[in-house]
Amino acid sequence: MSEAKAQGDLAGLVDAFLKSYRDDPRAQFINKRYIPSRDEIIAVMRLLLELFYPGYYGRQDLTDENVAYHVGATLHTVREKLERQIELCLCYGSESGERATPDLPRCRHRGRRVTDEFLARLPTIRARLLLDVQAAYDGDPAAANLDEIILAYPGLLAVTVHRVAHELDVLGVPLMPRILSEWAHAQTGCDIHPGATVGDSFFIDHATGVVIGATTHIGAHVKLYQGVTLGALSMPRDAEGNLIRGTKRHPTLEDRVTIYANATVLGGETVVGRGSLLGGSVFITRSVPEGHRVALDPPRLRMVTPKVRAGEVGSVPPSAPEPGDVDFDI
Amino acid sequence: MSEAKAQGDLAGLVDAFLKSYRDDPRAQFINKRYIPSRDEIIAVMRLLLELFYPGYYGRQDLTDENVAYHVGATLHTVREKLERQIELCLCYGSESGERATPDLPRCRHRGRRVTDEFLARLPTIRARLLLDVQAAYDGDPAAANLDEIILAYPGLLAVTVHRVAHELDVLGVPLMPRILSEWAHAQTGCDIHPGATVGDSFFIDHATGVVIGATTHIGAHVKLYQGVTLGALSMPRDAEGNLIRGTKRHPTLEDRVTIYANATVLGGETVVGRGSLLGGSVFITRSVPEGHRVALDPPRLRMVTPKVRAGEVGSVPPSAPEPGDVDFDI
Amino acid sequence: MSEAKAQGDLAGLVDAFLKSYRDDPRAQFINKRYIPSRDEIIAVMRLLLELFYPGYYGRQDLTDENVAYHVGATLHTVREKLERQIELCLCYGSESGERATPDLPRCRHRGRRVTDEFLARLPTIRARLLLDVQAAYDGDPAAANLDEIILAYPGLLAVTVHRVAHELDVLGVPLMPRILSEWAHAQTGCDIHPGATVGDSFFIDHATGVVIGATTHIGAHVKLYQGVTLGALSMPRDAEGNLIRGTKRHPTLEDRVTIYANATVLGGETVVGRGSLLGGSVFITRSVPEGHRVALDPPRLRMVTPKVRAGEVGSVPPSAPEPGDVDFDI
Repeated sequence: MSEAKAQGDLAGLVDAFLKSYRDDPRAQFINKRYIPSRDEIIAVMRLLLELFYPGYYGRQDLTDENVAYHVGATLHTVREKLERQIELCLCYGSESGERATPDLPRCRHRGRRVTDEFLARLPTIRARLLLDVQAAYDGDPAAANLDEIILAYPGLLAVTVHRVAHELDVLGVPLMPRILSEWAHAQTGCDIHPGATVGDSFFIDHATGVVIGATTHIGAHVKLYQGVTLGALSMPRDAEGNLIRGTKRHPTLEDRVTIYANATVLGGETVVGRGSLLGGSVFITRSVPEGHRVALDPPRLRMVTPKVRAGEVGSVPPSAPEPGDVDFDI
Repeated sequence: MSEAKAQGDLAGLVDAFLKSYRDDPRAQFINKRYIPSRDEIIAVMRLLLELFYPGYYGRQDLTDENVAYHVGATLHTVREKLERQIELCLCYGSESGERATPDLPRCRHRGRRVTDEFLARLPTIRARLLLDVQAAYDGDPAAANLDEIILAYPGLLAVTVHRVAHELDVLGVPLMPRILSEWAHAQTGCDIHPGATVGDSFFIDHATGVVIGATTHIGAHVKLYQGVTLGALSMPRDAEGNLIRGTKRHPTLEDRVTIYANATVLGGETVVGRGSLLGGSVFITRSVPEGHRVALDPPRLRMVTPKVRAGEVGSVPPSAPEPGDVDFDI
Repeated sequence: MSEAKAQGDLAGLVDAFLKSYRDDPRAQFINKRYIPSRDEIIAVMRLLLELFYPGYYGRQDLTDENVAYHVGATLHTVREKLERQIELCLCYGSESGERATPDLPRCRHRGRRVTDEFLARLPTIRARLLLDVQAAYDGDPAAANLDEIILAYPGLLAVTVHRVAHELDVLGVPLMPRILSEWAHAQTGCDIHPGATVGDSFFIDHATGVVIGATTHIGAHVKLYQGVTLGALSMPRDAEGNLIRGTKRHPTLEDRVTIYANATVLGGETVVGRGSLLGGSVFITRSVPEGHRVALDPPRLRMVTPKVRAGEVGSVPPSAPEPGDVDFDI
């Protein structure tokens, strides 16, 4: 196809896209000036990982001689990038919210203040992350040492990003917390909404499939395994049938709760009491008092000789027992 | 080790690899000329995301003045890259299929035609994606606005890639649809086979662990949560014991079906009727009529005082109740 | 903010970080010399993928003429990078273990020997991977051919990385196996601990959410689906309440076992016998004899007319049946 002809053929398609942008305001960001950069936000998160876990992320040759320079330079870059992105998020918030033309100097001023407040909290966040690292070691017999946890445990990465995203959420920064939490979700398979409040010494083992809703409260020394959902029971709607946003819809876990793989706990009124353990695959929609262990009644399983042909995957050797169709309490 | 000695030591290993390539034709792509580039296919998908969601993906400074140029240039690159990759996929298909030496001019001709047909469908795909974005907002009280959904909802990314992959599958392009769907799976944890047909206004919340089989039919306004499997019940085999490929093995969901977290629906004959809701963790292998709600019978849960030692994680405070081994209908 | 002022404001924060590094030895790697590079280890893994699946990963223009050069050059780079990283891992192991100052010449010597032993096993690993590729094709009716499996099946990627990580684990290399397995976990959602022993012809379909513990034994011709957990039943602790590490805590699956989606099998004493099939979502903590099929008793499901308002998602058409609150054995 000649270049000129090809160009001509595309013209109709270009027009169709432009018309679709003009006709429907949704799912486009045209003629708006303020949107944060996902890449820059993630770059900031990676630098924070270098500060939280020095020598594991980023530079690996840190010594007493160079570490002060490294920390200073890293913090400097963090502040520069973060201030710019927070400013964009705040402008974005006012552009899409109350006023069409955001007050840029005001966003700048507030962006600087919010950035400083966030940075001042970093040492406290790090102190809490040390407790999370220790909780992972104390809770997993397969962990050889703390290094392995920092270098290779997705649950720790998810919790680290959450503690950052949650502070930004508390400080009222729009969009950025969700971009961070979804980055962590993509890395780890663990989806913690930035709104969730999480106590000290939190450990999520294996992490894949864990979903923690926006209004969840989690106490200290809580341990979750893969596939646990802390979710909503129903969708509150207003008189027009629209979803009501912002009510407490997700559960509360008190201190020292442990929840095993693939368990589901639903509802904003549901409280799992101090020290209680929920077994694998339980499905809970009402509160559990403190100090209890809840497990599935051993399911009635049916155990039968499979009807398979010889040579098939799953085939039974001639010597296999033939128990008929007995029930099997396993 | 000296360089010469090292070189010598590797010679035997090189020979072992070459012998293994010679002795077994599987798992190698040597002396064949046509295979698509995974990187190029994903590059095309990223450009399509820029066209579908302008200003969110790619350039962030779009205005009425520059958007036409941006769309034109992007579409031009998409066509160039896509035509080349479709051509390679078609040549690959005939090389590995009916004829040893594919008819290159024929692949080129068909590649151009298929590319044009696919591109012509893009505006329709975008119109459907707007409905998916809206469905996500209408279905999730935690969503602050549409921007958040486009920037941070893995379910929307999975559905967007699926709508592209499915069109390419319908147009008979080999390999490319599966490469796209697996890329989305790696990003989102949500595995939608390109063969599945999906109606308008589809929303998958949280996305991790969702598996949707190749012959699934999904109606309009369907909502799925994390961990839902729409799978096959059994493996049909022919007289030689080989799997029969291509029969309908996966379920049908009619319009306005909602399926909560970790539910499993299996079987090609299984139909979930219009407006029905399946509760979390249900396991369904037979049809559900329209307008019904199906939930697990509240499981018999055993609630006991845990036998733990003082000071242990999960330990019980002295004041904890001691209910023995009571049943607990939760 | 002026640069000087900004610099000044950060000084307190820098000090707070440095103090936190000084006061607590955890979660930092400062003044230690030996830690492997995650990026380099993953670069080695990518080169191994090129050797295992030539023409699919990396260069796509391989022929009988150039393949020997390609294999030779790739192996040369693999050895160089791998020897360096193994050396670092071994030095790391002795630095954090028995001796403060590791014997560098000894690590180098052992690193070279371990690297050579590992490389010599590569052809055997590849031979086993061919069986895994074939098992995926034989076990999935949605697979069009072997190419699709190599290019787009996350289960195969997870198993490929596991076979490499497990050999390095057997050879006593610290850290590297866990870094590899977590990389695969992040790509595929499938978490196989490097310690697990896995027989020939292993297939994991869809892969997301699969967790296989460190002391699991898996026989030949085993097939797993998404969400399967092979986990520990309890946490053995010593007299001081510390976790005991290293005992067999995870199950054994004999040859030709199949386990469907989201099933959970727990416990080091639990053996699933030859040829047995476990149905979706079963929860097993005791052994299953050979040649049996275990399934959930069909759950008592409640089927009711949903109480929804007209116009709502999930609303019921006026003609819908109203069965009250009947039980529904589905």
